[in-house]
Amino acid sequence: MKTHYFDYVATNPLKPEVLEVMMPFLKEDFGNPLSNYPPGIKAREAIELAREKVAALIGAPKPGTVVFTASGAEANNMALRGLALAKKDKGSHVIISKLEHHSILNTARFLEKQGFVTSYLPVDKHGLVDPEALKRAMTKETVLVSVIHASSEVGSIQPIKELAAIAKEGGASFHTDAVASVGNIPVDVEELGVDALSLSAHQFGGPKGAAALYVKGGTRIVPLIYGGIQEGGRRAGTENVPAIVGMGKAASIAAQMLPVWQEPRRKFRDRLMEGVLKTENVILTGHPTQRLPHHASFCAEYIEGEAMLLMLAAKGIYVASGSACSSKALKSSPILLAMAIPTGLAQGSVVFSFGDNINDDDIDYVLEEFPAIITRLREISPFAKDGWGDSEEGK
Amino acid sequence: MKTHYFDYVATNPLKPEVLEVMMPFLKEDFGNPLSNYPPGIKAREAIELAREKVAALIGAPKPGTVVFTASGAEANNMALRGLALAKKDKGSHVIISKLEHHSILNTARFLEKQGFVTSYLPVDKHGLVDPEALKRAMTKETVLVSVIHASSEVGSIQPIKELAAIAKEGGASFHTDAVASVGNIPVDVEELGVDALSLSAHQFGGPKGAAALYVKGGTRIVPLIYGGIQEGGRRAGTENVPAIVGMGKAASIAAQMLPVWQEPRRKFRDRLMEGVLKTENVILTGHPTQRLPHHASFCAEYIEGEAMLLMLAAKGIYVASGSACSSKALKSSPILLAMAIPTGLAQGSVVFSFGDNINDDDIDYVLEEFPAIITRLREISPFAKDGWGDSEEGK
Repeated sequence: MKTHYFDYVATNPLKPEVLEVMMPFLKEDFGNPLSNYPPGIKAREAIELAREKVAALIGAPKPGTVVFTASGAEANNMALRGLALAKKDKGSHVIISKLEHHSILNTARFLEKQGFVTSYLPVDKHGLVDPEALKRAMTKETVLVSVIHASSEVGSIQPIKELAAIAKEGGASFHTDAVASVGNIPVDVEELGVDALSLSAHQFGGPKGAAALYVKGGTRIVPLIYGGIQEGGRRAGTENVPAIVGMGKAASIAAQMLPVWQEPRRKFRDRLMEGVLKTENVILTGHPTQRLPHHASFCAEYIEGEAMLLMLAAKGIYVASGSACSSKALKSSPILLAMAIPTGLAQGSVVFSFGDNINDDDIDYVLEEFPAIITRLREISPFAKDGWGDSEEGK
Repeated sequence: MKTHYFDYVATNPLKPEVLEVMMPFLKEDFGNPLSNYPPGIKAREAIELAREKVAALIGAPKPGTVVFTASGAEANNMALRGLALAKKDKGSHVIISKLEHHSILNTARFLEKQGFVTSYLPVDKHGLVDPEALKRAMTKETVLVSVIHASSEVGSIQPIKELAAIAKEGGASFHTDAVASVGNIPVDVEELGVDALSLSAHQFGGPKGAAALYVKGGTRIVPLIYGGIQEGGRRAGTENVPAIVGMGKAASIAAQMLPVWQEPRRKFRDRLMEGVLKTENVILTGHPTQRLPHHASFCAEYIEGEAMLLMLAAKGIYVASGSACSSKALKSSPILLAMAIPTGLAQGSVVFSFGDNINDDDIDYVLEEFPAIITRLREISPFAKDGWGDSEEGK
């Protein structure tokens, strides 16, 4: 059976040309970047070149503003915790949105144990934060605001520029979790006006194990991992050289190819959205247009999401039900509930995301199989039997 | 010029058979281990198999006691911080040794800002901690003791079993940084009686980017990286699947080959030690026998360590001067000073460490080149001119 991988927000396949540049560093060029002899120097130079490429992808003026981490989660932890703790003497109020990833949400809870108070910005039915809500939430005590750039679960792209300006106006630092967006849409840290931004390589064709936190020049941040002098003393641990080199290559490919990828991706997405929404009692989640170009997410009423995923997988279609990081938890997504989507709908969440190798056959196949699976699931759904007239018993 | 890599404590080359098992996960098997469709399940199973292999290498009774991290530094941060914070209500005293890696030392400093008090155990001239000193340092407030298993800088192997028993007797948790030892000497967490133990793959032929913290069953630990449900909620972030798979393979190779490697390595080490110590005014650092079998470290009087490294590198011999993580800092090593080695000697520190592909030619070459370099450096050394009769001016 041909498989159709529609879960790029969970992880991407590594681009072959990325693996190619990684290979020497998995073989003969194995030096520790801190060593002062040729193999070490070669590794160090490779990392600095990768740093330049990552900086270029996000419009960072200086490569030194890019701190390599091992995951987007680590970058998010480092940002929220490190920026808040660095300003603890100035205030103890942090603002995040209700759309944040668990790595932000649970770090906020850790900060609460450290004496911080967190406010949670609401979102509208499209999953968007209203800049006016941030204005109202800001206090003299607010030291940090963190709002996700684009949700991997519903795809909506937040008005980061407006939000960052409001935070700045109020004297707070602004961080955005751009893990799902960087490499998939153009992102420019200076244009957005953010103080910190998280990104992850395996979201744009790079390897797992390499991610980064952009930290604007002059911004104080308390490290998350203490130790050696790596990353300018901001993040200790022997650098994962092959992965960082791969991240650099993936960044330069994305920087070059994004203008080419955008329009075809949007067309595939819109075809997918239009087709799937023809299925009865299926709604789009997130904003219809202000969303990631490689992302279409839905809720199907009277359907249990995990069952839908299993049936799709049985047909070779691999998709996500909400965030990969919580999909095993089998709860209704707090993100969908925050968007005022009723539990009965939120249970039937499905997220399609794809890469630049997608073609019309993939979309055709989904549009053929998806409605049939929904029909079958409703036939056997205990939810459907009461309120829904389509089941055997109901007839 | 043939090169002779003598810096295995900085990092190891990746074993070809390890890279081989990683390759599918760098190519077609790219799924996210949290995804519930075949590519995700395959990745998840591969990680759990690797966990079993790592557990077997360190004698951990249950694979679930192994938490994968991205570096030894991260494992050390997680251990010291996480075990101390988990017991904060019971006391606020932490004990570490003066031989610890920066990832322990600087985390202790962070804990001090959180209200903890740190005691630093002294070491003798061989770099060994006296268990009696730990007994004296223990108080009712002591919640955690952390002593490095084997120092990468001086090679000495600590009496961890005795130290862990004393900590347990006093009601404190015990952690050991076994990054330099695991995979190089037999390590058994149950025999040692530790509550937590850090290890790192690239110290035994595995890849950079994969390391682990053993946490004894039932031990409470506050996470360092919050987020998704990976690693049983103890360490968030998408798993670096290829690296973890590689770590598992390296662990199983080490478990199988350690008995074979030990004796030849010791012989090479002893030949190296004997030969190098024939050079005038060169001393061994660390214990002469109770030390890592692949490690020989020295101090040469009236020599600037960095210059020695550069001249050795010019001859194709790659060695370390103290810890890789601080080698660019050009200060006298606090570890050597703690062993009461005078500054004049500590400046001329050099560490040779090697792997299982070492041969007699490597040793012969070092024993030929090293004394000549020392003589040359002393001729040009400003330190040597005053107190040393061997320079041109002194004659």
